[in-house]
Amino acid sequence: MIAVIAGGVGAARMLAGLRQVVAESELTAIINTGDDMVLHGLHISPDIDTITYTLADAVNPETGWGLKGETWQAMESLERYGGQTWFSLGDRDLATHMYRTQRFSEGATLAEVTAEVALAWGLDISMVPMTNDRVETMVTLTSGEEISFQDYFVARQHSVPVSSVRFAGAEASTPSPGVLDTIEGADKIVIAPSNPLVSIDPVLAVPGIRAAIEARRGDVVAVSPIIAGAALKGPADRLLNELGHEASVSGVAQLYRDLARVLVIDHVDADQAAAIAAAGMESVAAESIMKTPEIAKQLAQVALDA
Amino acid sequence: MIAVIAGGVGAARMLAGLRQVVAESELTAIINTGDDMVLHGLHISPDIDTITYTLADAVNPETGWGLKGETWQAMESLERYGGQTWFSLGDRDLATHMYRTQRFSEGATLAEVTAEVALAWGLDISMVPMTNDRVETMVTLTSGEEISFQDYFVARQHSVPVSSVRFAGAEASTPSPGVLDTIEGADKIVIAPSNPLVSIDPVLAVPGIRAAIEARRGDVVAVSPIIAGAALKGPADRLLNELGHEASVSGVAQLYRDLARVLVIDHVDADQAAAIAAAGMESVAAESIMKTPEIAKQLAQVALDA
Repeated sequence: MIAVIAGGVGAARMLAGLRQVVAESELTAIINTGDDMVLHGLHISPDIDTITYTLADAVNPETGWGLKGETWQAMESLERYGGQTWFSLGDRDLATHMYRTQRFSEGATLAEVTAEVALAWGLDISMVPMTNDRVETMVTLTSGEEISFQDYFVARQHSVPVSSVRFAGAEASTPSPGVLDTIEGADKIVIAPSNPLVSIDPVLAVPGIRAAIEARRGDVVAVSPIIAGAALKGPADRLLNELGHEASVSGVAQLYRDLARVLVIDHVDADQAAAIAAAGMESVAAESIMKTPEIAKQLAQVALDA
Repeated sequence: MIAVIAGGVGAARMLAGLRQVVAESELTAIINTGDDMVLHGLHISPDIDTITYTLADAVNPETGWGLKGETWQAMESLERYGGQTWFSLGDRDLATHMYRTQRFSEGATLAEVTAEVALAWGLDISMVPMTNDRVETMVTLTSGEEISFQDYFVARQHSVPVSSVRFAGAEASTPSPGVLDTIEGADKIVIAPSNPLVSIDPVLAVPGIRAAIEARRGDVVAVSPIIAGAALKGPADRLLNELGHEASVSGVAQLYRDLARVLVIDHVDADQAAAIAAAGMESVAAESIMKTPEIAKQLAQVALDA
């Protein structure tokens, strides 16, 4: 059994690689929900949906999120009203949020709905939100303004300087049923190449999860989302710098040293093995830009062998 | 100034006739919201939307509700999840419910959102929900089961026998701002050819509205939704019978006698003028099946002249 601590696009690709190496039924993804939001009354879980659509081979390959072959009638019509169109929701994607919200009104938990949606897409992987409680990643800008993660990430295109991040509601939250057992019992735990500060940290902020992973440190491998000092996608490099870390694989190692024994890095960063060792982690170099399913598979194999 | 007590499709056509006779800005529609519901987390106001879309010349002419040229991607996708697809929501129509729900979360009232949506469609008519409070038309079947109006009307296609109707929440509700003033100050009040028991009665159940209309009885004209003993659309005839009334123009007169001085009936019912008089109302006969804009205009003129 393999547990994967997962954000969105990078984690989805990592999982797509892992299921080429082990059976889908052997995989459990423990997924960040700090990016979740309610918009238009609909409960939206971006990371869960990105992973679901990717593993269902239904994701839009150009964006890495949303559905391929999507239509946009609802969003275009919303413009008539001056409605909130900054967060694009395709017509087919809307059905996922409508279903989730309706099921909530019927008393279902996020974990239950997530499993139902995964099953409907024919997936055999265990998809588990980090918590059934509401945890909201909040971003404070250097201007002093505090905004929601999606406001930062989508509306402002992560182009504004950040002074701090917090996970509102995390202290009072509890892990989804089975999360701690999964971490305790997994043969291997993989921290996916997701943003350490706004995708992985929210998962670790749910009481009990960080300690459970630390207790398994010898079997935990992290895949660096930083390659040659930059993030492939999103603001990880910028955020690392702004929040006082180093945007490098050794900067990542300093964040993950208590959680994981091994850091998988890209070949281009192989010269930083000593710095990573100095930070307290072993390292393994591999091709880590998952441009093709074959590369994702090889990366997954490296992570599991580490 | 003309006030129109309005349900859905029949009222929408009546209003489309009236605005050919008087300026749109002279019209105020006081609209039933007892059919409103929350589904998929979205607040849906079927009668308000039917009137808006009809007056915007955007309604689906085949159904009388929804938008013409509509697409159904969200509904089709919802089927994958086994979601609730019994109430059809087109992709473009969804934007209306999304906007309304989002505005509610921002603190707007239904009256405010209704005005915003009407303005966005270029309408100059005052569109007013009967109340900003939640009133729910509940239908008790002869089986003893109580169900929501939309469950009765759409899911069960109004083909199950009914023993009673109530308007949950009505007693604690208050009319929308301006409703009572509009009724008091109108030159004429028109009760549209909507279902008396489940479209007009909910409006009258909001405390203050019935009394305000009764006080204006001499200037109130009702248009019969019953023609030759039958409803053009929907279960009005069936419900009248089931709830102990007569499915005829004189049955309608008995319901409206305290509210309206005149009942506009179809030519085919002209022979019932005496029965209507016996029930306590004057009557005027006209062509009342609004198949064309010209017929709707003539019917509107008859109502205003009555």
